[in-house]
Amino acid sequence: MDIVRPTLLLDKEICLRNIARMAEKAKAKGLIFRPHFKTHQSAVIGNWYRQFGVTAITVSSVRMAQYFAQNGWDDITIAFPVNILEINEINALAGQIRLNLLIENLESVEMLSEQISEDVGIFIEIDTGYDRSGIAPNKYYGINAMLDVIRATSQLQFKGFLSHTGHTYTAQSKHDIYNRHFDAVLKMKSLKNQFRHEFPDLILSLGDTPSASICDNFNGIDEIRPGNFIFYDLMQHQLGSCNLEDIAIRVVCPVIGKHGSRSEVIIYGGAVHISKDSIINLDGKHLYGQVVVNKEGEKVLLSERNYLYKISQEHGVIRTTTKGFANFKVGDLVEIIPVHSCLTANLMGNYLTTEGEWIPMMSSDFYNQPGSSSNSLFTASK
Amino acid sequence: MDIVRPTLLLDKEICLRNIARMAEKAKAKGLIFRPHFKTHQSAVIGNWYRQFGVTAITVSSVRMAQYFAQNGWDDITIAFPVNILEINEINALAGQIRLNLLIENLESVEMLSEQISEDVGIFIEIDTGYDRSGIAPNKYYGINAMLDVIRATSQLQFKGFLSHTGHTYTAQSKHDIYNRHFDAVLKMKSLKNQFRHEFPDLILSLGDTPSASICDNFNGIDEIRPGNFIFYDLMQHQLGSCNLEDIAIRVVCPVIGKHGSRSEVIIYGGAVHISKDSIINLDGKHLYGQVVVNKEGEKVLLSERNYLYKISQEHGVIRTTTKGFANFKVGDLVEIIPVHSCLTANLMGNYLTTEGEWIPMMSSDFYNQPGSSSNSLFTASK
Repeated sequence: MDIVRPTLLLDKEICLRNIARMAEKAKAKGLIFRPHFKTHQSAVIGNWYRQFGVTAITVSSVRMAQYFAQNGWDDITIAFPVNILEINEINALAGQIRLNLLIENLESVEMLSEQISEDVGIFIEIDTGYDRSGIAPNKYYGINAMLDVIRATSQLQFKGFLSHTGHTYTAQSKHDIYNRHFDAVLKMKSLKNQFRHEFPDLILSLGDTPSASICDNFNGIDEIRPGNFIFYDLMQHQLGSCNLEDIAIRVVCPVIGKHGSRSEVIIYGGAVHISKDSIINLDGKHLYGQVVVNKEGEKVLLSERNYLYKISQEHGVIRTTTKGFANFKVGDLVEIIPVHSCLTANLMGNYLTTEGEWIPMMSSDFYNQPGSSSNSLFTASK
Repeated sequence: MDIVRPTLLLDKEICLRNIARMAEKAKAKGLIFRPHFKTHQSAVIGNWYRQFGVTAITVSSVRMAQYFAQNGWDDITIAFPVNILEINEINALAGQIRLNLLIENLESVEMLSEQISEDVGIFIEIDTGYDRSGIAPNKYYGINAMLDVIRATSQLQFKGFLSHTGHTYTAQSKHDIYNRHFDAVLKMKSLKNQFRHEFPDLILSLGDTPSASICDNFNGIDEIRPGNFIFYDLMQHQLGSCNLEDIAIRVVCPVIGKHGSRSEVIIYGGAVHISKDSIINLDGKHLYGQVVVNKEGEKVLLSERNYLYKISQEHGVIRTTTKGFANFKVGDLVEIIPVHSCLTANLMGNYLTTEGEWIPMMSSDFYNQPGSSSNSLFTASK
């Protein structure tokens, strides 16, 4: 099949290798492997995990939980603080599958307690240092106040503590990632020590992609939830989570212009395809992607001196060296390795595998008007 | 209808007022008004322009041209350098409607000359200072080389010169926008003087939203193509293109958490809803949106000291003052005024009007697998 416009190319073999590596690591360390599916958002790709024994997954929204439930997954954690406004969808879904919700404040769990009609598992979100959502691990008073509501509500089963160590993404070195991860491990273990007498089966759930890829010490942790690792990307590469060869997706883009006076190449591929996430390049500028060109039938990765340095809605501008400039020809295709594969995939809406198969995503094969109450996929009865 | 998750709210009255103002300005100055439809990407919204006499439109991709052609528009300029790989779709479309293409280099027009089978209008893209795509206005040799190919190809009708004065977006003041716009006007007029003897009907087409909103001197220009003005956004407001009351879209987001220790509020609404485009706030930090809250039944815009200052895939973090913090309650809805409405709309996929009507976009009601050659909407024969 000819590619004629920006297309998200996916290498299935690399994905399977990445899944296998993470599944083996989890197994070797006795961890529940509950991968995050927000990265790929695809039922087809989700099924690739099954051959590695995965039966439980993580998602980031009720909509995503509905989509994967409809596609055969019956044990789902929504790793996003519960949005009480979606209580109807939550009750409907909880009547069909094993659903775990996340709480991080008393108001939410009180409203949940009043409005929940089905059994759900509850994780309390702990802020181990990322400073986004979650309660600080030393706030026993606040944690206990939430637990009191859980204790008093028969439909709410306390499952454990969950944290997203997202501050590994801003680490300056691998050593820094070890440090932040280990600090999170210690904080989580202190909670287990505090509450394991009342809740002997409580689960500690961690596992952003950088720490899950790099760190070896998960002592005391029960579950990991990495997502990005199936594709990886340049941000993960810069952090040291992966090799360039482990990155499974690229955006194929047509070359539409060349500007020799400033050694720049214009591609059809912009913010609506690749996203505006960037890392800082060697030259101190924002880098939106690295570039692979076709040289006499062989794919060649250009150095960071030839990189995607500017994007607008549909245009991308590749800055090149004088020598690098000669690699581009108007009408050719180039491949862009993305900085943040989650956002790129979300924008592109579907995948073309290197074997020529089209793979749809949630956004393309599960479209409904948001906010409409007729969106529920399930009836409320069990 | 209850809003329960991030939803793109659209005020139709504001849109109509914005269109009316721009249509009147174009009429008063004797300009062809060919609005850019990449901002809204919606057939329903496109039809709102018809009552203002609009019959010709601008789009940024072949796919968008196909979509609007299917929805009754028969005079379309694709204001993006021609992507020769889409020649089959271009020929099919050109057999059905009046289609104008953009060229900016010799290679493209040579390939076009060989492969075009239908009549198309051709604009040469001029780089008036934005340094993205386009040929510099003083490169007569290059321009003439392109014109030679056009002259020799019966299907290619030269229409004129087109420029996107995108560097008005980085202007530091209104004065700076006037300067950059006027510089572009002069450069375009010099081209008209040079080529009007051979092409007496040649069109000069300009018109980014900042200059189309702010500037009054279009002397010598024949056509404007603004797009963003239908919605406007915080970036346009910062540039001085609009008042806050002219911004027609907001993302409605549920409040899911509050963190008093750092005066921060967590909302369900992140990079996959609002986009990562930002402006610099008064405090020197990135601002991803301003916040409107509901105070005793009235919508109140909070000052820039309470703003969306961090976003990840699904989370948004609002930084507030101690006083501002009291405006938020878990389970409430807040409205985010976006920084760049084009990218926000592209991500959200559809609109809910303040009158309660759902309006689909191209991405939701015109879905096809990209790159598939079966995407053509028209047969090649006239």
